[in-house]
Amino acid sequence: MNVPHAGFRKYIAIVGRRNVGKSSLINAIVGQDVAIVSDVPGTTTDPVYKTLELHPLGPVTLIDTPGLDDEGFLGEKRVERAKRSLYRADAAILVVDDVPTEHERFAVNLLRQLEIPFIIAINKLDLKNNLRDAYIDFGVPIVEVSAKTKTNIETLIKTVCDILPEEEPRPMLAHLIGEYRTVVLVVPIDTAAPKGRLIMPQVEAIRETIDHAATAVVTRDTELAQTLEKVNFKVDLVVTDSQAIMRVEKIVPKQIPLTTFSILESASKGDVKQFLEGIDALKNLKDGDTVAIVEACSHVPTCDDIGRVKIPRWISEKVKLELEYRFFAGKEFPEVEQLSNCKLMIHCGGCVLNRTAFMRRMRLAKRLNIPVVNYGMLISHLHGVLERVVEPILKKQG
Amino acid sequence: MNVPHAGFRKYIAIVGRRNVGKSSLINAIVGQDVAIVSDVPGTTTDPVYKTLELHPLGPVTLIDTPGLDDEGFLGEKRVERAKRSLYRADAAILVVDDVPTEHERFAVNLLRQLEIPFIIAINKLDLKNNLRDAYIDFGVPIVEVSAKTKTNIETLIKTVCDILPEEEPRPMLAHLIGEYRTVVLVVPIDTAAPKGRLIMPQVEAIRETIDHAATAVVTRDTELAQTLEKVNFKVDLVVTDSQAIMRVEKIVPKQIPLTTFSILESASKGDVKQFLEGIDALKNLKDGDTVAIVEACSHVPTCDDIGRVKIPRWISEKVKLELEYRFFAGKEFPEVEQLSNCKLMIHCGGCVLNRTAFMRRMRLAKRLNIPVVNYGMLISHLHGVLERVVEPILKKQG
Repeated sequence: MNVPHAGFRKYIAIVGRRNVGKSSLINAIVGQDVAIVSDVPGTTTDPVYKTLELHPLGPVTLIDTPGLDDEGFLGEKRVERAKRSLYRADAAILVVDDVPTEHERFAVNLLRQLEIPFIIAINKLDLKNNLRDAYIDFGVPIVEVSAKTKTNIETLIKTVCDILPEEEPRPMLAHLIGEYRTVVLVVPIDTAAPKGRLIMPQVEAIRETIDHAATAVVTRDTELAQTLEKVNFKVDLVVTDSQAIMRVEKIVPKQIPLTTFSILESASKGDVKQFLEGIDALKNLKDGDTVAIVEACSHVPTCDDIGRVKIPRWISEKVKLELEYRFFAGKEFPEVEQLSNCKLMIHCGGCVLNRTAFMRRMRLAKRLNIPVVNYGMLISHLHGVLERVVEPILKKQG
Repeated sequence: MNVPHAGFRKYIAIVGRRNVGKSSLINAIVGQDVAIVSDVPGTTTDPVYKTLELHPLGPVTLIDTPGLDDEGFLGEKRVERAKRSLYRADAAILVVDDVPTEHERFAVNLLRQLEIPFIIAINKLDLKNNLRDAYIDFGVPIVEVSAKTKTNIETLIKTVCDILPEEEPRPMLAHLIGEYRTVVLVVPIDTAAPKGRLIMPQVEAIRETIDHAATAVVTRDTELAQTLEKVNFKVDLVVTDSQAIMRVEKIVPKQIPLTTFSILESASKGDVKQFLEGIDALKNLKDGDTVAIVEACSHVPTCDDIGRVKIPRWISEKVKLELEYRFFAGKEFPEVEQLSNCKLMIHCGGCVLNRTAFMRRMRLAKRLNIPVVNYGMLISHLHGVLERVVEPILKKQG
């Protein structure tokens, strides 16, 4: 099995009281013609991960969470610990073997609060079979199973697969092409630009433009003014690299919609409204607060430059805030412990992530109650042009 | 050592009579702080290859050729066999240990005929040292060495490195940008186009255009007419994919220079005049002649499609020739034996090759006396538009 990196795998949490059969249910699922890929041992209060191949979904990681009624799991830190075991989950299976108790109600409330879709598995079908009515009011799919006799396990798998959030790829800019069928793409060539080629978001934007029967006009920022004259300013959209936004914003007449590759990427892969909430959260920050800077790729000098140098400098200059920065780079999202006390997450454009992987990160941030912004929107905000560059997208989203 | 594939390494042939010390000279060179990478054993009549690292040149393959006076090397097949041992050489060292004989004169004539630059190494400096005058008339650098005492080996290496042909990268289209500072790039999107991106020559053309302070206007062939109107036909150059040349040629007004990515690539990496000679050689072909179709990459369906299906079909349709085709794909150039009896070589655009690698292939074809054309120029020729699409390049070359 070719294991995709964690950003692309789906995570399913198995939740329930002790002794309802969570582990034996996982074994029953794993027994369904699947290959165990990895076992990460955990302690009583830490979740255990099992990655396996679930047809037709592909690779999935099952999270064996600690018992809801575990002693180490009670007390005032209970919510915090439960959240920690659930924060990666794309979906959950609440396993029960009797009528609902406060523990089941606690779990259901938490799953709803975290916006994790879930189903209920009534286990020990071999012993009892009259529990369905007791759970019908939760309004989620219920499957009666027996981990012991391996009854209905396939139905369980199918049911949980059905509720997993499916992230459809969204167009980047095709929906913003209008009557002129012309998009101008501004590609500043500075020392950070790779030699002899363009970066992927630029290539993708050109391709998407021509794929939708429009003309892609590519220019450096230094030739943008002449380029706009060449096409008589009959342009549906100008897209620029965020780093050149200040110069470009002055050149592009107000009546021409202007945005950045980064904003297009946010809207295509992430959630612009969640990012705007993140921008809004900036005003609650105070000197000394900790901020996480998260990059999906590693060792790209351009990213380093923006994330490690320019953004902290602009934050210091423009909003007069001296913050503590923690840097994370690479395809794995930081662990919840590493993000504790972070008051804001500043995420890169995520050009190496697809929508599934990016939306997972946005949901994780939401579950950790950490406001999140991305490089492009933050840079535009710090330079006072966010309203203009986000307008074409918001207008279209309505 | 990281061995570049054969197309990028330089080959140096060691030529001379038996017992002049060719092999010990190679050992002396190899002893100069170099690492032997591979030894390919040969027979008396086959050359032996040794790949090693020569600072500052990088990886080099030394070709230990059979003795010029070897018995198996005489007779009527002599020229053929000598050529076979030399056809890969970028440069040669003629090793001598006495005054010139018919063998040295034969070698010098052959090297000149094959346009292989060479130097003369007078070996056995420890025994004789008055031979320089006897070779001065050959007009090439002479180095007196002793393989035995390892004298002057560094000078020898430096001297041969100095005569190796150095292929400078040439611009693809920057020199064709004129007063309008606008280049239109036509990218037909058919089933063979890779999803969501552009191919490298297209990306390189866009980047080179904007790097030279011009505007790159990218469009599909289906939107080309409207696109030309958008820029008021003020265009220095239209570049199209060869496969769409027929449709594009009808759309682009005669006064606008038109060429193809393939022709630009030929001129940038290869030798347009040699290709035109290849086109000229087409008229000497007759039914049943064998033609080599050579692709630098492998397993790209687009290439397969053009090389294996379309070109043979067009040749059959347009010039009414039924030829025998031999297909070669991959980064290694075919061996001389595989090309024997080939009356023409049809080479792909070579987008995975740099100029050094491409020019090596063109020289090899020349040494084998095989006329060579490339896909783009052949396609344009077969469709009757070669004259137009090659004009912008020839005009500039003067």
